[in-house]
Amino acid sequence: MTYSVAVSGASGYAGGEVLRLLSSHPDVSIGAITAHSNAGGLLGGLQPHLHSLADRVLSETTVENLAGHDVVFLALPHGASAEIAAQLPKDTLVIDAGADHRLEDPIAWEKFYGSAHAGSWPYGLPELPGHRDRLQGAKRIAVPGCYPTSSLLALAPGFSAGLLEAEDVVIVAASGTSGAGKSAKVHLLGSEVMGGMSPYGVGGGHRHTPEIEQGLSAAAGEQVRVSFTPTLAPMSRGILSTATARVKAGVDGDQLRRAWTKAYADEPFVHVLPEEQWPHTKAVQGSNHVALQLAYDEHAGRVIVSCAIDNLAKGTAGGAIQSMNIALGLEETAGLSHQGVAP
Amino acid sequence: MTYSVAVSGASGYAGGEVLRLLSSHPDVSIGAITAHSNAGGLLGGLQPHLHSLADRVLSETTVENLAGHDVVFLALPHGASAEIAAQLPKDTLVIDAGADHRLEDPIAWEKFYGSAHAGSWPYGLPELPGHRDRLQGAKRIAVPGCYPTSSLLALAPGFSAGLLEAEDVVIVAASGTSGAGKSAKVHLLGSEVMGGMSPYGVGGGHRHTPEIEQGLSAAAGEQVRVSFTPTLAPMSRGILSTATARVKAGVDGDQLRRAWTKAYADEPFVHVLPEEQWPHTKAVQGSNHVALQLAYDEHAGRVIVSCAIDNLAKGTAGGAIQSMNIALGLEETAGLSHQGVAP
Amino acid sequence: MTYSVAVSGASGYAGGEVLRLLSSHPDVSIGAITAHSNAGGLLGGLQPHLHSLADRVLSETTVENLAGHDVVFLALPHGASAEIAAQLPKDTLVIDAGADHRLEDPIAWEKFYGSAHAGSWPYGLPELPGHRDRLQGAKRIAVPGCYPTSSLLALAPGFSAGLLEAEDVVIVAASGTSGAGKSAKVHLLGSEVMGGMSPYGVGGGHRHTPEIEQGLSAAAGEQVRVSFTPTLAPMSRGILSTATARVKAGVDGDQLRRAWTKAYADEPFVHVLPEEQWPHTKAVQGSNHVALQLAYDEHAGRVIVSCAIDNLAKGTAGGAIQSMNIALGLEETAGLSHQGVAP
Amino acid sequence: MTYSVAVSGASGYAGGEVLRLLSSHPDVSIGAITAHSNAGGLLGGLQPHLHSLADRVLSETTVENLAGHDVVFLALPHGASAEIAAQLPKDTLVIDAGADHRLEDPIAWEKFYGSAHAGSWPYGLPELPGHRDRLQGAKRIAVPGCYPTSSLLALAPGFSAGLLEAEDVVIVAASGTSGAGKSAKVHLLGSEVMGGMSPYGVGGGHRHTPEIEQGLSAAAGEQVRVSFTPTLAPMSRGILSTATARVKAGVDGDQLRRAWTKAYADEPFVHVLPEEQWPHTKAVQGSNHVALQLAYDEHAGRVIVSCAIDNLAKGTAGGAIQSMNIALGLEETAGLSHQGVAP
Repeated sequence: MTYSVAVSGASGYAGGEVLRLLSSHPDVSIGAITAHSNAGGLLGGLQPHLHSLADRVLSETTVENLAGHDVVFLALPHGASAEIAAQLPKDTLVIDAGADHRLEDPIAWEKFYGSAHAGSWPYGLPELPGHRDRLQGAKRIAVPGCYPTSSLLALAPGFSAGLLEAEDVVIVAASGTSGAGKSAKVHLLGSEVMGGMSPYGVGGGHRHTPEIEQGLSAAAGEQVRVSFTPTLAPMSRGILSTATARVKAGVDGDQLRRAWTKAYADEPFVHVLPEEQWPHTKAVQGSNHVALQLAYDEHAGRVIVSCAIDNLAKGTAGGAIQSMNIALGLEETAGLSHQGVAP
Repeated sequence: MTYSVAVSGASGYAGGEVLRLLSSHPDVSIGAITAHSNAGGLLGGLQPHLHSLADRVLSETTVENLAGHDVVFLALPHGASAEIAAQLPKDTLVIDAGADHRLEDPIAWEKFYGSAHAGSWPYGLPELPGHRDRLQGAKRIAVPGCYPTSSLLALAPGFSAGLLEAEDVVIVAASGTSGAGKSAKVHLLGSEVMGGMSPYGVGGGHRHTPEIEQGLSAAAGEQVRVSFTPTLAPMSRGILSTATARVKAGVDGDQLRRAWTKAYADEPFVHVLPEEQWPHTKAVQGSNHVALQLAYDEHAGRVIVSCAIDNLAKGTAGGAIQSMNIALGLEETAGLSHQGVAP
Repeated sequence: MTYSVAVSGASGYAGGEVLRLLSSHPDVSIGAITAHSNAGGLLGGLQPHLHSLADRVLSETTVENLAGHDVVFLALPHGASAEIAAQLPKDTLVIDAGADHRLEDPIAWEKFYGSAHAGSWPYGLPELPGHRDRLQGAKRIAVPGCYPTSSLLALAPGFSAGLLEAEDVVIVAASGTSGAGKSAKVHLLGSEVMGGMSPYGVGGGHRHTPEIEQGLSAAAGEQVRVSFTPTLAPMSRGILSTATARVKAGVDGDQLRRAWTKAYADEPFVHVLPEEQWPHTKAVQGSNHVALQLAYDEHAGRVIVSCAIDNLAKGTAGGAIQSMNIALGLEETAGLSHQGVAP
Repeated sequence: MTYSVAVSGASGYAGGEVLRLLSSHPDVSIGAITAHSNAGGLLGGLQPHLHSLADRVLSETTVENLAGHDVVFLALPHGASAEIAAQLPKDTLVIDAGADHRLEDPIAWEKFYGSAHAGSWPYGLPELPGHRDRLQGAKRIAVPGCYPTSSLLALAPGFSAGLLEAEDVVIVAASGTSGAGKSAKVHLLGSEVMGGMSPYGVGGGHRHTPEIEQGLSAAAGEQVRVSFTPTLAPMSRGILSTATARVKAGVDGDQLRRAWTKAYADEPFVHVLPEEQWPHTKAVQGSNHVALQLAYDEHAGRVIVSCAIDNLAKGTAGGAIQSMNIALGLEETAGLSHQGVAP
């Protein structure tokens, strides 16, 4: 069976990546491709890398244009996706790459987004305990944020196994600039970002912080408190997260290593690298793979986990398609067999 | 039918790219993966982006290890491939990604490479007139150099159509650093190349010059003389060639455009972009696609053609696999459906 | 004596570079620093690299604010500078980093800029024959464009010496993105430009073409026709120009080399590198220096000249200050002793 | 008075930067410039950005060649500098940019460097309490490592003021590739590093960890334990450190801010930015400046400090010259007036 799929927000980076990955998916046919300000134009002019779809015309992002497909991907600004999703048929699989349905706690939502909470959907990170089940047969899926994807994959095994303290968790992540989207802003100009690094959203203000805490707290069974600092790196794609937490008394390095290798032993996309080999974002570039390594710093009493993903692939579009595969009962890796593109 | 394929030089960039593309090819199974100094090691430590092949062990590059496959890819230094190829069975399809068998003229070979000429093989650029035929059923294929690929695709249509003068052809090309290979050299360090550009091999000294002239002269039916200057750009992949030639008297812009669009009308990988849209190397990154645009500068009396390829894909491994497909009678695009990876 | 200097357009890249260089100039004091949309703000928020000027407040770009200084730098969009310059006192040294007063030919101006010609001023490229004299005591100076600076320095010696043909001159240049200015545009986002190259303004359409031809024709004493193609490189700063021209019959390589070395023998900023050493834009980054090398390609009958400058320094602000020094009778190198910043 | 200065290790990045900065220092004359494998060559071939020194010949790095100068800079591999320093006259000011004399604790030295401890020298970070005094008149100075410079400047004020807990200090730093030196290694090739990020020396293994703890413990008056993770960023220069520590009970955000602003109020190079403005490494590129910002994350109970330096300037050569100025009784900022080079 072939599923018809509509993609909104197709002129942006997330929408473009959904289309790139879907274009080689064996079980889908791409139906409506929609955008807002670029409606009416050819996809080839906006996403010139999507050669096989270059002649497709973008239609306006409306409920009418999206309805009638088996699957709808929403790659829209927060607020917009909730509004459209509410009007789509209940039996359409709606996958929201935006933030609207990620947070379970309405208070956290309102604090960080300043608007009414649209409710939460099954969370598209199947590698977290219990989440794969919830995605099977789901009709609404919230795609995790890119930083939460890498942060949760980095630390969840240690919290699930009860090896880490819930306080003083620190995550510093470097993201490629595509994470900031495709709208024209001076501080994102090539001239500004090439050759330099800077932090942003420091001090707990980044909207991904409550999402990270939500996931880690669920894994830990207690409230986890995270200091999260994102930085902007001079690269188009990729997130490298350095995540550290205090190890509980009596836990040793072997226990730590076993917790992570066991958690991901059967995962097709998450790779705990051989010891001494550290993740590099280029090794996962363009792919749904996750490269992960950990070290126990006995002196500091902390575990340090390094996790590399492609923010647009596993961090957005790849994770979304992986979740779609589960929801539809397809092979989980269907359409996601890309290796990393390196060097 | 599934063809067994061996890949030598697997620890380098060209060999790694052959493996990346072959790993999703529907008609092949990857047999021996060989290297020299890294023999015995795991591929995952050398090419960490090739996740599905991470556990494969590299064997030594020997005739014994390569023989017994239907297809052998040689991604070896020049000299080495000719030596091995001579010992491989006549009915094995041998595809040489190196230089040994590209040049037809022994004198040109000796002048630029300083060694005995190993002879020339069918040339793996099927988009050039007559070449696709020669590749069908071939048992030996010389993969074009990356600069010649982009230069010949840029200018051949104009010469084939008799629209261009054979003198004062000028090509200036910018290449990503992977074109210089993976051996450790100070001038290729990231610290040296990031944020800057420089030329090299200036003044006719680059080994790709005779190869470009060979192809353009064949298209023109007369000796074409090319001034070719390569430059090193701060990017890992990609070649952007700016190729210009004097237009013959009486030729107008419409004739020029028609020559190029007609030449590539049925080509699956070469795209003459809509007018006013110019090639960008990122739009072909990781793919076998070629983006091409031309403009007629009436004032200067010259046509300027801009051509973007991925030096490792269409410029090496992708072109090699495309040629393999033709030689084996497979679908020409098999295993090459990748879009560009952008941004 | 200390000269008071005003700088307009201070929130842009050109204005910022003028301020950076002036801040260590021994003979000037920086007076008004003006901008338009950012007037009223602190310079430190807009140009955080100018540490010693961080507390300076930007005033509005008006005639009133600029008048009353010995020197006024205009780093404004074309059109705007001519309008303001016309109202500044005749005895104020006005240095226009924009295009308004570069072209001598009103017809060329109108063709490429589509507005009325404001007249031409002494041209701030003292290394061209005769130009240094015209700058001495000048009260109005047009700063050359960045591409013309590198193109003219590359080829003028050969034309001045009568060694080159006036037809089929080809220049392909790669520029850092700061050459495109600081306004927010999608195609200049870091995500778009990092890791890739693309051409623009192809086919004679770039506004710098008539300026290059103006300078080369003056050097040659006949109309020179140039095919000029600019490309955008993934770096913040720098221009690498590859300039080639047909060598006249009977001219040999020694004559060529002598022409260039002689032309620049006494120039403090232009360096013909030792043979076999090729220019790299990073070696001139942040400095007013010019690195230049040439090769005679006998086979193609052409000279190839490679020229590296910093587009913002020698290509804009450095050239402007060098011209100011000459106009004011200061040491020509005053305030311009910066080495390149590499790696 | 003019001081004669010798610079060893002149073909490397640290040595090159010392020369770049010294070349515009008003109080020094550059004497011997020495190297090892490149002795006998011209500096211009190795450091083409040092235009004013291009014709200088490199001599061999020997005691004979270095002795007889007022000041000797050692930019040598660890081990080598201690050996040479021991043979230089006692009244020569010897400034070691290497590691040999940084650590006070012989046991820490032996653990991390595996050789005999050469003793410790006055530590060239005058912004730390008490250190400026020790540098005055000193004849031996150990230049801090680049990571320690940014880490100590980031956190020392909070520890000096008694506001931070000594456990669970976490520092994650991103460094440009020049920090890894100029020797040819595959993992430092441009093809490998451009467009990606990776960590290294994770888990307490990096040699800069004991140096950071030494400085913070001295500031705190108790043993501080640090989890330090360095990452390699795709840029030539710059370090961005994200340093976080648990705030002691009862301390509020105002106290934190006051501690930092007070500590650096009179420092010429360290700038606590206006609130909401975050450091960017490009704003300090090529300069001795330090950009610093902090935020109090009440939720996590931690302060986050972001600190940007140029690893080669303030992190190595600039810090070395600043210390030299203090030792010689010169103006502390002499020769260090460079602004950042941006964009």
